[in-house]
Amino acid sequence: METEKLETLAQAVLGKIFVPLEASGRHVHVTAQQAEILFGHGLTPARELSQPGQYLAEERVTVVGPKGTFENVAVLGPARKAAQVEISLTDGRTLGIKAPIRASGDTKGSPGCTLIGHKGSVEISEGVMVAQRHIHLPPQDAARFGVRDKQVVKLQTFTSRPAVFEEVMVRISPDFAAAVHLDYDEANACGFVPGDWGRIIL
Amino acid sequence: METEKLETLAQAVLGKIFVPLEASGRHVHVTAQQAEILFGHGLTPARELSQPGQYLAEERVTVVGPKGTFENVAVLGPARKAAQVEISLTDGRTLGIKAPIRASGDTKGSPGCTLIGHKGSVEISEGVMVAQRHIHLPPQDAARFGVRDKQVVKLQTFTSRPAVFEEVMVRISPDFAAAVHLDYDEANACGFVPGDWGRIIL
Repeated sequence: METEKLETLAQAVLGKIFVPLEASGRHVHVTAQQAEILFGHGLTPARELSQPGQYLAEERVTVVGPKGTFENVAVLGPARKAAQVEISLTDGRTLGIKAPIRASGDTKGSPGCTLIGHKGSVEISEGVMVAQRHIHLPPQDAARFGVRDKQVVKLQTFTSRPAVFEEVMVRISPDFAAAVHLDYDEANACGFVPGDWGRIIL
Repeated sequence: METEKLETLAQAVLGKIFVPLEASGRHVHVTAQQAEILFGHGLTPARELSQPGQYLAEERVTVVGPKGTFENVAVLGPARKAAQVEISLTDGRTLGIKAPIRASGDTKGSPGCTLIGHKGSVEISEGVMVAQRHIHLPPQDAARFGVRDKQVVKLQTFTSRPAVFEEVMVRISPDFAAAVHLDYDEANACGFVPGDWGRIIL
């Protein structure tokens, strides 16, 4: 068998047992209306992400908090119903924002911030959060791992600084590709490098 | 019993079962000679640290890497035989330095950087590292937990984002106070706040 085919097969077999780890850097989701204000037009897809339909936009924003600023922050598309600024706890210290740890979409009562695009700026009253670590799974993978939507599991990382993360939320959808989403605090805490795997522990 | 006495008792009992967690921010150790060059004099103790004899110095340095700089970085005393710059993997990305994960003192072959004090600057050829997570224990605590010097254990954190850190090094000395030392990647990954505890798992 050719090396490339062997590698593809090995990856497929590993994917039956483990879940690929991914580190999410700080990023922003905006509404279609906010995109118009920030950029003068809608979001422009630049690169597909691992989750089907999701993309990194060509547009970038500056995130401004009371104590600090991040420039050139990634914007992910498509546009959402509400703005969401996903940062790490480390980022929160830099910005001077006490961001709560939340599931994606659960922005109610979270702190706001200012977003600046190349065309305009937007003040959001809420939406700054640290994304709770979570696992995306399509139904067939979820069935094999024996987990249900919103189940909280442990995740063992096979990384240079191995760790078991407790309280990891499982999210199941036919639209998902299997992936563990960690923020950079978590990724660096376990010494993650791209290509690393994790194992669900029930 | 007064509230204060009760609290002291509670802490003492908890300390028989758990180990207090501490987060170490980026900091620098310098030699006596380097302190002379950087500050024009030896280190001035400003505040005692949890480990007996160790102190935060009044003096501060700027750490310069190929891609970034940290100003106002803590210097810990007393002076050592070799400079050591302890950063997180996140800090390493900012500085543009690929720092290895090492036990304290094991600086051989690690990258260097530039240190700038208020009086002068020093180029160090090696010493930049990410401190391997570790547990300081005095012998009596080590005996109770059933661990020996340099034993590698797991550590379960009782924190807002609970985790089990694997490959945690135990260091035993009569000069130590019981404390788990995490860097800020690890501390934030587990949602640490001061006063949190961890449990050694064998």
